[in-house]
Amino acid sequence: MTDTPDITPAPDEAGPERAAVSRRRLLGAVGAGAAVAGAALGAGGAVLAHHDSGSSGADAAGSGPQTVAFRGVHQAGIATPSQDRLCFATFDVGPGATAADLRELLKTWTAAAEAMTLGNPVPGNPGDLYTPPEDTGEAAGLQPGNLTITIGYGPTLFDRRFGLAGRRPSGLVKLPHLPKDNLDPANSDGDLCVQACADDPQVAFHAVRNLRRLAFGTLVPRWMELGFGRTSSTTPQQATPRNLMGFKDGTRNIDGTDAALMGAHVWIGDEEPQRWARGGSYLVSRKIRMLMEQWDRDRLGDQQDVFGRFKSTGAPLTGKAEFDTPDFHAKSGGQYVIPADAHIRLAAHENNNGLRILRRGYSYTDGIDPETGDLMGGLFFIAFMKSPQQFITLQTALGQHDALNEYIQHIGSGLFAVPPGLAAGQDWGTQLFG
Amino acid sequence: MTDTPDITPAPDEAGPERAAVSRRRLLGAVGAGAAVAGAALGAGGAVLAHHDSGSSGADAAGSGPQTVAFRGVHQAGIATPSQDRLCFATFDVGPGATAADLRELLKTWTAAAEAMTLGNPVPGNPGDLYTPPEDTGEAAGLQPGNLTITIGYGPTLFDRRFGLAGRRPSGLVKLPHLPKDNLDPANSDGDLCVQACADDPQVAFHAVRNLRRLAFGTLVPRWMELGFGRTSSTTPQQATPRNLMGFKDGTRNIDGTDAALMGAHVWIGDEEPQRWARGGSYLVSRKIRMLMEQWDRDRLGDQQDVFGRFKSTGAPLTGKAEFDTPDFHAKSGGQYVIPADAHIRLAAHENNNGLRILRRGYSYTDGIDPETGDLMGGLFFIAFMKSPQQFITLQTALGQHDALNEYIQHIGSGLFAVPPGLAAGQDWGTQLFG
Repeated sequence: MTDTPDITPAPDEAGPERAAVSRRRLLGAVGAGAAVAGAALGAGGAVLAHHDSGSSGADAAGSGPQTVAFRGVHQAGIATPSQDRLCFATFDVGPGATAADLRELLKTWTAAAEAMTLGNPVPGNPGDLYTPPEDTGEAAGLQPGNLTITIGYGPTLFDRRFGLAGRRPSGLVKLPHLPKDNLDPANSDGDLCVQACADDPQVAFHAVRNLRRLAFGTLVPRWMELGFGRTSSTTPQQATPRNLMGFKDGTRNIDGTDAALMGAHVWIGDEEPQRWARGGSYLVSRKIRMLMEQWDRDRLGDQQDVFGRFKSTGAPLTGKAEFDTPDFHAKSGGQYVIPADAHIRLAAHENNNGLRILRRGYSYTDGIDPETGDLMGGLFFIAFMKSPQQFITLQTALGQHDALNEYIQHIGSGLFAVPPGLAAGQDWGTQLFG
Repeated sequence: MTDTPDITPAPDEAGPERAAVSRRRLLGAVGAGAAVAGAALGAGGAVLAHHDSGSSGADAAGSGPQTVAFRGVHQAGIATPSQDRLCFATFDVGPGATAADLRELLKTWTAAAEAMTLGNPVPGNPGDLYTPPEDTGEAAGLQPGNLTITIGYGPTLFDRRFGLAGRRPSGLVKLPHLPKDNLDPANSDGDLCVQACADDPQVAFHAVRNLRRLAFGTLVPRWMELGFGRTSSTTPQQATPRNLMGFKDGTRNIDGTDAALMGAHVWIGDEEPQRWARGGSYLVSRKIRMLMEQWDRDRLGDQQDVFGRFKSTGAPLTGKAEFDTPDFHAKSGGQYVIPADAHIRLAAHENNNGLRILRRGYSYTDGIDPETGDLMGGLFFIAFMKSPQQFITLQTALGQHDALNEYIQHIGSGLFAVPPGLAAGQDWGTQLFG
C-alpha cells in the first residue's frame, strides 16, 4: 500500500489523543487511585470484555475512563499525562526475517496493542485446550491503567535489509559520542523500541511481554527496562515527582497539553521531507546511573548547588516556590546564586536559544553491583523532540559542564523515530512501509 | 542489655499488629487506592510530619490509615495483608565491623524503620547546608503506602565473628541442596535481609536505600530485588493475583488473620530453645526464573494440567470456582483429573501431612538475557514458616516431581530467621544480642 495518510499536525488540532487526555484529566488522581485499587483487588474484579470475564464478580471501580485512545494524530504516550510505571524494550529484527515478515508483524502488533490499551486480551485464539493462549494472562482482571503503547524505529531499521532506506526520517542517525558517555551496548540502540506506560506495572510488563510473544521468529529482544516511578510531569495538573537524588527535576517540563509548545518543540513538522514521519517525534532514551553512595554523602548545600534548586521545596535557589522562574543573573557576594555549573542553568531554555524537550523518564533499579556492593539504579531518561539535534545540543553542554556529572553516568542510549498516530484502519506496517 | 522480653505468642493474642491489620482492613481497597492516588499526586502533597512539609499544600487523601504498626508481638510484613510492591535486599557484615558496630547499627535501623513506616523521614540531622541530609528524600510527599520493614538474620551471622553462636535459632542452618537447584551465589544468602513492602514501589525502594545509607561502613549490600506485583493474598479479603504464567497461584494460602493457623504453621513457638526467637518465623526466599518463552508456547490444556487449575477462573480442575476444594481422588477415563505431577497436588497440605507455609511472593523482572534474547523474570518467592523443614519437605517433593519444573528454574535462595516483633522501647540490636 502506498496511500500513506498525510497527517500534518496543526498546533490547534484536537485529535482523539487530546480528547482522551481531557477525559482522563476529568478524573485526575481519582482515576489513578481507582486503577490501583483495581490492581489491589487483583484478579477478582473482571474487566471489560476480558476473555475470562467469567472468573468472578463485577468490577467496582469504573473501568471505562482508565483508557487512553490508541489512535489519533499523534501516538499516545507522549503528550499523555505521565503514567506511574513504565516497561520499555527494544528489539532487533532476527537474521531470517524478511520485510514481509516485519510488515505482517507490525500489523499484528497494531491489533494487539490497540486491544491491550482497551484492557482487552491480545485478540485471536483465546486458547482452546490444544493451542497456546494468545494472551499470556497475567493482566486478566486488572484495570487498563491508562496503558499506552508507543512504537519507535531505530536508525538501523533503515539500512538495506528491508528496503526502507528511502523512508528514513532525516534526523534518524545514530547519536554521536557525547561528552562523558560510558555506554554499554547491552543497554543501547535497537531496530525497534516499545514504550509501555501504565499506572500498574504488571499491565505495562504484560504489554511488552505479549508483543514479544507475537514477535517470536521475527524479532529478538535486545534490552528491557522497568521504570518503577515517574520522574516527570507532562501537565501542570500533575505534581512534580522526585528522582532518586531526592530532587524535583522536571519542574520546567513542556506541558503536553499545550499544542503550540508541542508543535514548536516535540512534533515533527513540515520541515521533514519524509511526509509519513510528520506528526511523529524522536525519542531519546538514556540509562543514567546515579552514583547514589557518593550522592548520599554529599552535604545538602552542595546537592542544592548541583541542581540549582532547594531540595525540600523544589524552588530555584533564587526563588521561594517550585514554579518561580529561576533568575540566572542574580548574584550574592559576587557569585551567581544559581552556580555557573548548576544543572538547571545549563539545561534552561533561556540559556539554549529557547531549546526545549519533553521529558518523560522513570526511576529504575538493577539491584546491587556484585563487585562493589553499590546500588545500581537511577534515571531511565526518556525525552521526545522534533529533532535529535535538540538533545545533542543540550547533552553536549551538560556533559561538558554539568556539576551533576560527578554523581551520574550515562550507561545506555537509544534514538528512535516515533511515527505519528494511526488513522482508523491503518496499522504500523502500512504506515512504515508505505 | 540482657533483659530480653519474653514474648511467647499465644494464638489468640491481639497485639498491635493485629490492631493495625484490622484498622487497615476497614479501609480495604479504598485505602490502597488512596495510597497510590497520593503517589500519583507525587511530591505535591505533604505528608505527616515530613521534614520538608513546607514544600507544598495539604494532603488530600487521609494519610493516617495508610500505616501498619511497626511494633507488636510479631514483626509486620508477615501476617500483614500483602502490599502491592516489594523491595528486598540482603547484606553482609563488612570485614572491619565489630559486634558493637552491628548492635549500634541495628538500633539506628530500628529508629529509622519505625519512622519510615509512619511516613516520616529518617530521623536525625534533617540536613543543614553543611552536612548530608539524613533522609535521601525521594519519598518526601509520598504516602506511607502501608510500608512494612521486616528484618531477618542469615545462618552466617551466627558464626564466630560477633559472639552470636550461642544465640542461633535452632532451625537456622543453610538450606541443603534441593532437587533441581541451580543457584547463583549473587542471588543467594546474606548475613541479614530486609523485606520492605509498600503499595508504592518508590516508598519500598526508599526504605531499603536509606537503611543501606545508614549501614555505610558496617554492612555491604549483597543483592536486591524489586518485586513489581504481589503474587499472594494473605487474607481472604484480598483477591488472588496472577503470577507471570498468568495463573492464580496462591489460592490456598494461609490466612494471615487466622491466629490459630499462624500459630500452627508460621510463628516460632515454645518448641524453640532460643527464647528470644519465639514469636518470630523463618523466611525462605527463592528467586524462581520462569522460562516464559517455553511456557508461552505451551497449549492451554497442558498449562492447566501443570498447575491443576483452570487458567481463566483459577478453579481446580475438579471444581467450578476458585476456592472449591481440589478433589485429588477424582478420576476420568482412569486418569486423575488433577494429574499426579500437578503443582497443586504436590504442594497441597492434604498430601503433605498437613504441612503449610505462608507465601508472600512477588513477580520480578531483570530484563533481557543478552546471550539469548530471552526475558529474565518470574517469581521472587518469599514464604514464612515456623521451621525451615516445612520448605525443605515441600520443595524436595516439588523439585523431584512437579510438572512445573520444565518451565522454571530456582536461581537464588536464602534462609533467614525473622525475630519476633519489638516491644515498646526495644530495638533490633538489644533483641539480637540479648
